[in-house]
Amino acid sequence: MTARSISRFAAPDLADVPKDVRERIEAVQEKSGFAPNVFLALARRPEEFRAFFAYHDALMEKPGNLTKAEREMIVVATSGLNACQYCVVAHGAILRIRAKNPLLADQVAINYRKADLTPRHRAMLDFAMKVAARSHEIEEADYEALKGHGFAEDDAWDIAAIAAFYAMSNRLANAFAIRPNDEFYAMGREPRR
Amino acid sequence: MTARSISRFAAPDLADVPKDVRERIEAVQEKSGFAPNVFLALARRPEEFRAFFAYHDALMEKPGNLTKAEREMIVVATSGLNACQYCVVAHGAILRIRAKNPLLADQVAINYRKADLTPRHRAMLDFAMKVAARSHEIEEADYEALKGHGFAEDDAWDIAAIAAFYAMSNRLANAFAIRPNDEFYAMGREPRR
Amino acid sequence: MTARSISRFAAPDLADVPKDVRERIEAVQEKSGFAPNVFLALARRPEEFRAFFAYHDALMEKPGNLTKAEREMIVVATSGLNACQYCVVAHGAILRIRAKNPLLADQVAINYRKADLTPRHRAMLDFAMKVAARSHEIEEADYEALKGHGFAEDDAWDIAAIAAFYAMSNRLANAFAIRPNDEFYAMGREPRR
Amino acid sequence: MTARSISRFAAPDLADVPKDVRERIEAVQEKSGFAPNVFLALARRPEEFRAFFAYHDALMEKPGNLTKAEREMIVVATSGLNACQYCVVAHGAILRIRAKNPLLADQVAINYRKADLTPRHRAMLDFAMKVAARSHEIEEADYEALKGHGFAEDDAWDIAAIAAFYAMSNRLANAFAIRPNDEFYAMGREPRR
Amino acid sequence: MTARSISRFAAPDLADVPKDVRERIEAVQEKSGFAPNVFLALARRPEEFRAFFAYHDALMEKPGNLTKAEREMIVVATSGLNACQYCVVAHGAILRIRAKNPLLADQVAINYRKADLTPRHRAMLDFAMKVAARSHEIEEADYEALKGHGFAEDDAWDIAAIAAFYAMSNRLANAFAIRPNDEFYAMGREPRR
Amino acid sequence: MTARSISRFAAPDLADVPKDVRERIEAVQEKSGFAPNVFLALARRPEEFRAFFAYHDALMEKPGNLTKAEREMIVVATSGLNACQYCVVAHGAILRIRAKNPLLADQVAINYRKADLTPRHRAMLDFAMKVAARSHEIEEADYEALKGHGFAEDDAWDIAAIAAFYAMSNRLANAFAIRPNDEFYAMGREPRR
Repeated sequence: MTARSISRFAAPDLADVPKDVRERIEAVQEKSGFAPNVFLALARRPEEFRAFFAYHDALMEKPGNLTKAEREMIVVATSGLNACQYCVVAHGAILRIRAKNPLLADQVAINYRKADLTPRHRAMLDFAMKVAARSHEIEEADYEALKGHGFAEDDAWDIAAIAAFYAMSNRLANAFAIRPNDEFYAMGREPRR
Repeated sequence: MTARSISRFAAPDLADVPKDVRERIEAVQEKSGFAPNVFLALARRPEEFRAFFAYHDALMEKPGNLTKAEREMIVVATSGLNACQYCVVAHGAILRIRAKNPLLADQVAINYRKADLTPRHRAMLDFAMKVAARSHEIEEADYEALKGHGFAEDDAWDIAAIAAFYAMSNRLANAFAIRPNDEFYAMGREPRR
Repeated sequence: MTARSISRFAAPDLADVPKDVRERIEAVQEKSGFAPNVFLALARRPEEFRAFFAYHDALMEKPGNLTKAEREMIVVATSGLNACQYCVVAHGAILRIRAKNPLLADQVAINYRKADLTPRHRAMLDFAMKVAARSHEIEEADYEALKGHGFAEDDAWDIAAIAAFYAMSNRLANAFAIRPNDEFYAMGREPRR
Repeated sequence: MTARSISRFAAPDLADVPKDVRERIEAVQEKSGFAPNVFLALARRPEEFRAFFAYHDALMEKPGNLTKAEREMIVVATSGLNACQYCVVAHGAILRIRAKNPLLADQVAINYRKADLTPRHRAMLDFAMKVAARSHEIEEADYEALKGHGFAEDDAWDIAAIAAFYAMSNRLANAFAIRPNDEFYAMGREPRR
Repeated sequence: MTARSISRFAAPDLADVPKDVRERIEAVQEKSGFAPNVFLALARRPEEFRAFFAYHDALMEKPGNLTKAEREMIVVATSGLNACQYCVVAHGAILRIRAKNPLLADQVAINYRKADLTPRHRAMLDFAMKVAARSHEIEEADYEALKGHGFAEDDAWDIAAIAAFYAMSNRLANAFAIRPNDEFYAMGREPRR
Repeated sequence: MTARSISRFAAPDLADVPKDVRERIEAVQEKSGFAPNVFLALARRPEEFRAFFAYHDALMEKPGNLTKAEREMIVVATSGLNACQYCVVAHGAILRIRAKNPLLADQVAINYRKADLTPRHRAMLDFAMKVAARSHEIEEADYEALKGHGFAEDDAWDIAAIAAFYAMSNRLANAFAIRPNDEFYAMGREPRR
């Protein structure tokens, strides 16, 4: 892989990509100013691209009690655990923006226990990290702990499902060596006002 | 959870489930004689249900060099690593049927290194298990090892993607305590002829 | 090792084996319809054979509060932890028969936390698994937990001793690549009446 | 447990112990000047006592290519890995005496890679430690490595069997909190002449 | 700890701190525009402060073959492994500045195997990470690997000593909950020219 | 490295070593009857030598609530965890002497949970071992547990700092293969009066 490649698999020529896939890439490019490499990498497989982003949207964009910043906290913490460079860098940027906080993403990625978290967010990440690292040990007591912090049953589902989805995503990005776009590193770092 | 529940989350009433989701469940029920609990559990969230099975089909049902039995070997081996009762039991049944081999699933689930595998299958599972357990350490040498056993670049993608998809699926089944249907345990155990 | 060998060490010719060892093998063959490979493998070393089965009988066949099914649950759970194909397959069969339950062995081998267990059996396996995995951390609190579920002091000894004996047995079977006999896989799988 | 107890289980009154068990204890007491606590602890269960020491003798006292010092090196290294205080202290003493080396036991218990070992002994302990820690990963290559240092097939069996036997013994001593006799600590520490 | 505290231990009043310690703090404050919290936290213990920074300077500021950027790469990679928020954030800033590279620190902290590294730097970090994580397994082969990339004996010492010093530093910062100054997060992030 | 070398790095000629470093070595040699190899090994780097021993003295020799024996208990327990032969052997000797107890060092090095410890010392080592092994998980609850056994805030600092300093020291001794002097093994082993 050359330093500038998007992944160890070559990106497809966008001209050869099905229209719906190309349009989604163009839409994100227009909105963000660049096409995140995970879009280009997965475009090699249009069916997988569609399912991946449909799943992503169903968890990350849908209405629900968890704020978008909370969902990104789950992504960044579990991606740090899995040593996934792409997801920590890309979702770190999104978390900084959504939480309007330039510090939180690095804190959560390195050691969420030392991050500036409310007890509620600490409980949320304890649960998410257990799903990521030792899901076979999840028991009712873990759900009870969430309830003690005001999370509803559907919130628990959301936390687990996001942690599980990024368990997949981290493995894809790691195995395919998807490179984070340079643009992500500096996004959202301007100090809070 | 009572012993007979399908998961720690209640299954939705099928009458309340969107038509496409219900039809997919009815189709598998008709084909298999029962509705696998993962279908009922995920039906609580139709968007996630659709994305999950679209992704599943894109990896497990599509044409490609890997046989369906080989794909199930990846599922069973990595699900054993993740201590996922649902996936080992359900996909163990499918593997026995697809490989026409009543012994292979238990062997692979417990210790794939001791299973009756060709060197090619051993290499396939070495790669899949590394994606499942330590994807951040995957390097070009791992791809080279696959090539040495005749796997093409797209086969490597498939192996990694299946291991990654079941990393998600295992965490969902573990976190939600999805119970394997009793029917799976005995399927495909009749001796080879 | 060819696929059909009993182990990476050749089995001795039964004609060359001491009479008491041969008679024990013939007795189990008569009772079960086949000679389990662990008997054939260890017959290479008659002194070790005698000590191994004397120890086995002292723990698994003796009177005591633990039922035979409970003892086999300990064997299957800890052998799953140790990824011992021989012991999971062989004792899985025995557990299905002794517990008159075709599902329990697979459940316990993959993830005992998700198995259909009473709280008493869960406590028993928590203790056994700690002996198997981290015996240096066993403390009085672990014994107290057992007592809280009605286990007597001698029951605690039995649980620990069985977990310890199969820590040995698993390592022998793994190191010697003892192959489970094909017959074990399907035994005891007929549904409960 | 008081500091001076032999184990968390009370030792039986020797008057109540079967004659053969008592005689074995008296013989070792006569030879060593004290009864090692593992004898007293296991005497609570005569059948297990007999099987344990019969197995011990079949591996540790029998003729064979491995010297008695080599066998004790395996015990001390694997017992260090398992954090078994009784076995490291007791067999450390025996190793010092059998190897006529006051330093080797502590070296091997803490980090066998840094001990004063020949390449042959290093290979022996590499194999033993893999049996102790990850026996499910033992493969033919591990046996080949032993052969490269002159170990015969039966020597490999011995190394594996000793490592496996002390996997059991370590777990018994840890779970039962068998206390090493004070006498062991200082035995064999006089400098080499 | 309030979010703005420097650590779980209160910082001393600088007026009460010995003159040499205070002067060192004032010097770094003048140079950087702020006093890094590790200086304030350790000032509670002047003797330890002096020894810590003397050691730091002997490894990080002294002449030698390793560039200052290379030394910081070792700090950031091993601090990521140890989940040390203070050291990753603070030394990440220094690495960005010394390497004149706004991306490298985040890459190395999350997964050095996927960072934009020369083979020489990869070998340097492989060695450093082994010292950090499994120093008891370091052998001559690890030194040989370094030599193969042109590192001299004294360079190997430097790499090991820096990894070891930050093994200490990471544990101090983690145990004392030393908070990275907010200023570090954004330093050195301007794009390369 | 020959068996008798002090480390994989040659010791400097003492004639070439700065006067203060040489004098410190001569002083310890006079007091102990031999120069511990860590002094000779680090003399290769006078600046690091000075900082190392200044730090050592600031933690191990200064006044404070922890007795010198307690400090050595922390060193031996954490050095056992890190499989550091030099530190376990050398500080084991010092602990035997300072605690006037010939058994404690071996007990603590192998498994501090089974050592003859007061509850206060057990709590002290629980904290130290967590700093050594998983400092990123240290939280206020760990400090509270210490307070429950009468440790003051500054005692907690001392325990953490000693564990952290030997995390460094263990890695240096392991990476440099510093050999424990033969004299240490037998020191302090005469029975208590």
